[in-house]
Amino acid sequence: MAEPLSIALLLFPHLTQLDLTGPLQVFSSVPGATLHLVWKRIEPIPTDSVLTLLPTTTFAECPQTDVICIPGGFGVDAILDDDEVLGFIRRQAEGAKYITSVCTGSLALGAAGLLDGYRAATHWSARECLPLFGATVSTERVCIDRNRITGGGVTAGIDFALTLVSRLVDRQTAEAIQLRLEYPAPPFAAGSPDTAPPEVLSRMLERIAPFQQRRAEAAERAAAVLRNSAT
Amino acid sequence: MAEPLSIALLLFPHLTQLDLTGPLQVFSSVPGATLHLVWKRIEPIPTDSVLTLLPTTTFAECPQTDVICIPGGFGVDAILDDDEVLGFIRRQAEGAKYITSVCTGSLALGAAGLLDGYRAATHWSARECLPLFGATVSTERVCIDRNRITGGGVTAGIDFALTLVSRLVDRQTAEAIQLRLEYPAPPFAAGSPDTAPPEVLSRMLERIAPFQQRRAEAAERAAAVLRNSAT
Repeated sequence: MAEPLSIALLLFPHLTQLDLTGPLQVFSSVPGATLHLVWKRIEPIPTDSVLTLLPTTTFAECPQTDVICIPGGFGVDAILDDDEVLGFIRRQAEGAKYITSVCTGSLALGAAGLLDGYRAATHWSARECLPLFGATVSTERVCIDRNRITGGGVTAGIDFALTLVSRLVDRQTAEAIQLRLEYPAPPFAAGSPDTAPPEVLSRMLERIAPFQQRRAEAAERAAAVLRNSAT
Repeated sequence: MAEPLSIALLLFPHLTQLDLTGPLQVFSSVPGATLHLVWKRIEPIPTDSVLTLLPTTTFAECPQTDVICIPGGFGVDAILDDDEVLGFIRRQAEGAKYITSVCTGSLALGAAGLLDGYRAATHWSARECLPLFGATVSTERVCIDRNRITGGGVTAGIDFALTLVSRLVDRQTAEAIQLRLEYPAPPFAAGSPDTAPPEVLSRMLERIAPFQQRRAEAAERAAAVLRNSAT
């Protein structure tokens, strides 16, 4: 690709910060890439931890970029019915080469009407929400369907970003970044519902049930809004 | 462990943000854990990308914590001779259960005199700096030597943090966090000098040579200061 790459990543309150900071670490190693952290206003954005993030630009000021990327987290529920946020995502998506997400960020793409008829990935705990938006669930760590690239849960954002760089720049550049980040393999085999010890999985399912419920309700409301706007 | 866990993570200008945000994502999932992001003053800290981070406390205000953790990055060079930073690390280290680092953060532990006679890990490109501080190089992704736990490069911080949680809390808690973070395996095999394609490695070595040189010089100066203070 001759042109330097430009990427806009959405910030929003109570995002899972690693959904954003993982891909950002990858993208910031791409020579010449311009990165934007975008929110309604320039104000400190609380995340899911003590970390507070600062936007670099606003919805109004952000230029058209090659890639729009939506991270996930508990805060996603609140943006699924936020017209200002969904409007920004739709405007960027119109001119973007790639429309992307990490973790439950794909639900925001869905709520913006951008996954209808597409395969998409999300956090394993949120897969049942995707069909509400006309999307087919992918259990891949990185799902590529035409120009939609969606990553699975949290750390899949690093894999997603490496995969995107391998397509937008080249595989050697992606591999060089992976080498810089020393990204080989984790200490336990618990990283997916298929490999986690059954008691770890069942305890987790129990703990997240109320959040899953709240998210499912938010997704159902957003899907209803989409259906109504289509008729 | 009966007491809730408390962890202080050092911020400093031009750190590699994923060295910090990776472990932070893990630690913030530990029930009841208190996390501090510490710097000299409360002021926005520039990282190696467009991301700016905000400290939650200062060297003067930070309480004694169970764990002190130093991330790495190009900015490490500048703190290796910063008495205010090294003094804070030493004070925290005196009462900490675990003295830890990610990536080239181990050089700051070394410069503070805390790795003399210990095995330690660091980013693969900085391994030659560790012996300057009396440390033995470990090529493990996570190196445990008594109460020093040091992670390798960048993403090894996630593994380091999962390992620390498995020791300070229990393995099931660590596995549950790994499951939440969907942390299985990366897309390419390029994550270490041993597995990366040779041309990727050689290109990387060429590009980082000036930074390695600058870091080696900063480490040598810091080691000389340590030697002089010991005599």
